[in-house]
Amino acid sequence: MRALTLRADFAPRDGYPLDERERREHRIQNGNMVWRHPQITLDEIAEPVPKPDEVIVQVAAVGICGSDMHMYEADAATGYMLYPGFVKTPNVLGHEFAGRVVSVGSAVRDLREGDLVSVEEIQWCGECIACRRGLVNHCENHEELGFTIPGAMAEYIACRARYCWKLDDVADRYGEDIALQLGAMVEPSGVSYQGLFNRNPSWLPGNHVLIFGAGPIGLTAQALAQVAGAGRLIMVDPSPSRRKIAAEMGATDLLTGSEKLDEAVLEITKGRGVDTVVEAAGVAELTIQKLEQCLAVNSTLVDIGLGERNPVMPIVTYKYRGVNYVGSLGHAGMGVFQNVIRLLANGRIDLRPIVSASLPLTEAKAAFQRLESREDAKILLLPNE
Amino acid sequence: MRALTLRADFAPRDGYPLDERERREHRIQNGNMVWRHPQITLDEIAEPVPKPDEVIVQVAAVGICGSDMHMYEADAATGYMLYPGFVKTPNVLGHEFAGRVVSVGSAVRDLREGDLVSVEEIQWCGECIACRRGLVNHCENHEELGFTIPGAMAEYIACRARYCWKLDDVADRYGEDIALQLGAMVEPSGVSYQGLFNRNPSWLPGNHVLIFGAGPIGLTAQALAQVAGAGRLIMVDPSPSRRKIAAEMGATDLLTGSEKLDEAVLEITKGRGVDTVVEAAGVAELTIQKLEQCLAVNSTLVDIGLGERNPVMPIVTYKYRGVNYVGSLGHAGMGVFQNVIRLLANGRIDLRPIVSASLPLTEAKAAFQRLESREDAKILLLPNE
Amino acid sequence: MRALTLRADFAPRDGYPLDERERREHRIQNGNMVWRHPQITLDEIAEPVPKPDEVIVQVAAVGICGSDMHMYEADAATGYMLYPGFVKTPNVLGHEFAGRVVSVGSAVRDLREGDLVSVEEIQWCGECIACRRGLVNHCENHEELGFTIPGAMAEYIACRARYCWKLDDVADRYGEDIALQLGAMVEPSGVSYQGLFNRNPSWLPGNHVLIFGAGPIGLTAQALAQVAGAGRLIMVDPSPSRRKIAAEMGATDLLTGSEKLDEAVLEITKGRGVDTVVEAAGVAELTIQKLEQCLAVNSTLVDIGLGERNPVMPIVTYKYRGVNYVGSLGHAGMGVFQNVIRLLANGRIDLRPIVSASLPLTEAKAAFQRLESREDAKILLLPNE
Amino acid sequence: MRALTLRADFAPRDGYPLDERERREHRIQNGNMVWRHPQITLDEIAEPVPKPDEVIVQVAAVGICGSDMHMYEADAATGYMLYPGFVKTPNVLGHEFAGRVVSVGSAVRDLREGDLVSVEEIQWCGECIACRRGLVNHCENHEELGFTIPGAMAEYIACRARYCWKLDDVADRYGEDIALQLGAMVEPSGVSYQGLFNRNPSWLPGNHVLIFGAGPIGLTAQALAQVAGAGRLIMVDPSPSRRKIAAEMGATDLLTGSEKLDEAVLEITKGRGVDTVVEAAGVAELTIQKLEQCLAVNSTLVDIGLGERNPVMPIVTYKYRGVNYVGSLGHAGMGVFQNVIRLLANGRIDLRPIVSASLPLTEAKAAFQRLESREDAKILLLPNE
Repeated sequence: MRALTLRADFAPRDGYPLDERERREHRIQNGNMVWRHPQITLDEIAEPVPKPDEVIVQVAAVGICGSDMHMYEADAATGYMLYPGFVKTPNVLGHEFAGRVVSVGSAVRDLREGDLVSVEEIQWCGECIACRRGLVNHCENHEELGFTIPGAMAEYIACRARYCWKLDDVADRYGEDIALQLGAMVEPSGVSYQGLFNRNPSWLPGNHVLIFGAGPIGLTAQALAQVAGAGRLIMVDPSPSRRKIAAEMGATDLLTGSEKLDEAVLEITKGRGVDTVVEAAGVAELTIQKLEQCLAVNSTLVDIGLGERNPVMPIVTYKYRGVNYVGSLGHAGMGVFQNVIRLLANGRIDLRPIVSASLPLTEAKAAFQRLESREDAKILLLPNE
Repeated sequence: MRALTLRADFAPRDGYPLDERERREHRIQNGNMVWRHPQITLDEIAEPVPKPDEVIVQVAAVGICGSDMHMYEADAATGYMLYPGFVKTPNVLGHEFAGRVVSVGSAVRDLREGDLVSVEEIQWCGECIACRRGLVNHCENHEELGFTIPGAMAEYIACRARYCWKLDDVADRYGEDIALQLGAMVEPSGVSYQGLFNRNPSWLPGNHVLIFGAGPIGLTAQALAQVAGAGRLIMVDPSPSRRKIAAEMGATDLLTGSEKLDEAVLEITKGRGVDTVVEAAGVAELTIQKLEQCLAVNSTLVDIGLGERNPVMPIVTYKYRGVNYVGSLGHAGMGVFQNVIRLLANGRIDLRPIVSASLPLTEAKAAFQRLESREDAKILLLPNE
Repeated sequence: MRALTLRADFAPRDGYPLDERERREHRIQNGNMVWRHPQITLDEIAEPVPKPDEVIVQVAAVGICGSDMHMYEADAATGYMLYPGFVKTPNVLGHEFAGRVVSVGSAVRDLREGDLVSVEEIQWCGECIACRRGLVNHCENHEELGFTIPGAMAEYIACRARYCWKLDDVADRYGEDIALQLGAMVEPSGVSYQGLFNRNPSWLPGNHVLIFGAGPIGLTAQALAQVAGAGRLIMVDPSPSRRKIAAEMGATDLLTGSEKLDEAVLEITKGRGVDTVVEAAGVAELTIQKLEQCLAVNSTLVDIGLGERNPVMPIVTYKYRGVNYVGSLGHAGMGVFQNVIRLLANGRIDLRPIVSASLPLTEAKAAFQRLESREDAKILLLPNE
Repeated sequence: MRALTLRADFAPRDGYPLDERERREHRIQNGNMVWRHPQITLDEIAEPVPKPDEVIVQVAAVGICGSDMHMYEADAATGYMLYPGFVKTPNVLGHEFAGRVVSVGSAVRDLREGDLVSVEEIQWCGECIACRRGLVNHCENHEELGFTIPGAMAEYIACRARYCWKLDDVADRYGEDIALQLGAMVEPSGVSYQGLFNRNPSWLPGNHVLIFGAGPIGLTAQALAQVAGAGRLIMVDPSPSRRKIAAEMGATDLLTGSEKLDEAVLEITKGRGVDTVVEAAGVAELTIQKLEQCLAVNSTLVDIGLGERNPVMPIVTYKYRGVNYVGSLGHAGMGVFQNVIRLLANGRIDLRPIVSASLPLTEAKAAFQRLESREDAKILLLPNE
């Protein structure tokens, strides 16, 4: 079958302390410290065969994520991969996807051939202390589809049944084709859902909301905040094309980020400030760090944008106003996929404006190149078209 | 000025233990035990004068509530008032209202002549232990506008400033006239908001919701649950006209209550059950008592309908499924009015379908008579038209 | 090896609808509808062998639980088993236990020979929707050690590693022997912990607490409530011997249950009422049903006693006071075992007064007979002494 | 009567923008920008007279707080007061206190002559939006006893009744003298209670706890964390004398702060990390900023130490581990005083080890001088001895 494979040279930087497992498996914790000259190619590889607790999913749609771009892109000066997290190569990319079950392992109870499913990227072990506490996004032994094990930019993928969530109700509303494209958006929406609702201790309908970053994650956060009862929905992004999508999706206020943010937000909110702030731009040192006077009493900063730098935080203000900061990571467990799918299936959120283009897998390389400019929102690849 | 006054005979039933204050002030804790032959009349009374911490509000719109009906209606056999809570007579009725500030007391900081406001009915003291804990709906020394002190079915009313909430943002969206009519709906919406979001420990966007009772409270609960991200929204009401309004407002499923509820709900939710149940019919012994198999794990029963009887509860099932039951009363404090107004002002909820009619105060008696059939949703009186 | 086996006659009552699986496996959902003439015998059976994800635990101590008694006891008139939940027979009893790991399956990561462990009774599947939401006590496919699969009243037991929790810190404080006896108390303590802290939405240090039932569950609830900062700790139990243990463990107030409870509690709390009520007697119709005036605003009824009857509940009062009721079941997941073990290991709770006697397994039958009078708190069996 | 008065020169620094109210009332928002050459003197002033909603309290004990020291101390170079918050001068100092009601205003319902009370320092208005939401510590119009209005380092003080909390249950346990000394500790304990329990979203009994700073606030946090079920209780303080008090009060582990904190904490917690961190040293840039690897999944940093600087925060780690940061300020509202008093009255916390000395008010100046070395924990002044 066809699959988009990431390859790179194994070249640990001086001083990077490879551990035993990294040496043995080339499953590296900090990709940008080891992998050099990354490249992607469309290959023919063997089709997967299901283990007893797995199903084979024929992939209908798979999104290109910012992390995919960062594995594909290299630092201009050194040639090292940009992505700082877990990466193994060679590996098939792709972790935001949906498809149809075409084969079912012998121990699987709840899935059948023909089911449409969306699948969690985080392969939590279910055995470690974090998993036993229900905090599976912080699994101590996790694997990641499309990062450390084969992903979904391929015609077929093997998935353990417990990470699969059915899309039948979405198909009832939209038909199968659209349901499968929307199904590829459940994972990034789940990242926003986890931060906004499961992690945020002060969410209430009527909250004024400010979001940094109108990329795919920020836009799913917008859709979710709106459907959960945001008062004002202020989107901050320097890109006019991205602000345009946010406007179409119903943002009440648009900022570029070059304003005096405290003043602008206090004016929009008539002096009351914002109750929930979402960092989805990955540059906290340029975004949430700037907010002080416009943070309402008992407001919460939800940090889901995974950047590199640790900013100075105005914690004196945070004390005077009783502000909360919550770091959030992941989309698995806690009913996240179930709830996002219900919101899709009942028409509460419409994520179609976020999809810029849907292209066959054979055009994957061109799609990656096109995304280098960061003007698009989300491009989906369709491996079986 | 014109005002709609409730009068009744002071006739304590045999054995009702009047306390010292009831004897002195005729402010009775259980109205149906003391007041007989209630009647309403449109009188001329003196206009109110503001104390230092009060404003005078020119009432634009005031809703007729189920409690108003129960103070006006008498038991056919005995002639006693139906309403079982706090009542003083004679007293001006009316507690769901909005209007314009026309006079401002000397100590008021935040209100000005011309401001449009909606006003809390529960006049919490701010001094008792419950108030100091922030649980002002359970104030130990409260008064109630339109029940124990003069209400808003009059041209003018004196209100303490701290119970007033500005409607300026609603007027920005809809103009002043509609803002004032919607402003009269904030109090009943607040009752629903308090139960659904402040009291409910398991609310999350994506929750499947079932509501008993498509009267004004149940319909505001529907609007709020939908805007906060309900999955399925199942409305149960025997009245076809009320189910019709629920359908227009977007309910996904309609039941009459004569179905086998467990089965019907499991079918609608594909076996997963409901996550939040709202009792807004006031007959828990006919409603929530019937639900067992269709309650999802960690679901919550929010009880806001104030009936008379204490039902048998299937608590064995509640244990097996980890079910929560929360009693909820009131609409004051905790940001409830602020949040409801923000949802109105940003177009997240539209309560206009709930208003059946808007009539001048001179037609108040006819309006009360019309409501005896319980076919209308909400009738507003307009005291200054 | 020696093991205490429960046997009974398979005699479905008229009209009990056996499903396919019950017919095939004799794993019955409602034991009291099918099993007749139960009896226990001490047998020689084969020692267990670990599967790859299991360990073999040499059982040091195992408690006799109320459920064990109800499986052993029969209705005098009909001869049917009293226990109403899941039971398979023949089966080895015992589910509150601790022991030493003596053999480790090939796939187990975190346990070694010699480790001391306490083990969860609820064998959650980790695959169903409830488990994926982290609500493993409500697993849709669970098995129960000592009920549906072989339990711990035996010299050895096979346990899946993910249900095991290490007791090394408890042994550091108390030595291995006492650590293993306390380890047998973790499961019943976990039932109380889950209800008091994970399920209770209003727990705060300073809460006045009332507990119904000074049996082993109620006494662990007392120990936990005290260490978590209870104000008054009121224990209600008709048995003088059980009240005596509660007094020794530090209850501030003791009631027999024959008092006028509302009055007694208001006097103890100087009119403020109780904030948390724990039903651990299994007779809600005689206990929580009686409480009305003594429930503080925003108080919570935690229902962990598994009785049979569904009482009339004073829900009108619950609304006026903003009362919460939470059904609670189980002890697994959510960090419960971890937290109970930490409280033991750091000397925050001392459960030793709850243990009435420690007897060798050969005296099991006598121990069951002695417990028929319900005068003891907890009897431990020591299978390897 | 005798009173300890703070005086200073009104000398706004260049560029400090005095607003209209500061100019008129000399109630300065940033004391260290305006007040120079502060000094304290023991004066004779007039006794207070109660307004209708006030009582007069004869002060029995009043603590010297770090803020008192910072108002009294000046920067060596410039002579400006160190304290950066709200200050008016001249003003009577003292805000941590208890005493006996000796006179009652005409509108006061719940207090009588002879009552023993502890009093909130934050005089919340009860009218602003923050107060109406129940977030009274963030009142928009607050006054502060001993900072902007006359405090308790005097024989008598006038207090509004709603800020007073009765100590009768504490006196039942300890007698009146000790109850009044402990009553002076309720306010600083309330600061810790608010942060640990009302603000912390992840508190559970069994949490491993680390506290920075064994001053009076940190020690009350220790007492509260222990009584609420801390697992390990790790106190970090460079002062041997303060660590000694922490040890006496039951800390399980003591650190100086010069260790490699991540490593030391991981060793103490056997690799699991801490669940709750309390910053009570006021130097977040030297304390919480250092913690990364030792923060458990879903742990919370509670920041109650009011320092000056805004540190760099390791937010990338916070995301990977799902860490929460909560700023916390104040002790008023939310049942804080009620709950602290209940814990004292039932013997759950014993704060007596924190009191280093109790001195008559006439030795106030010497006491302030003695505290310059920061070796003592808490010194109480006894104005009526």
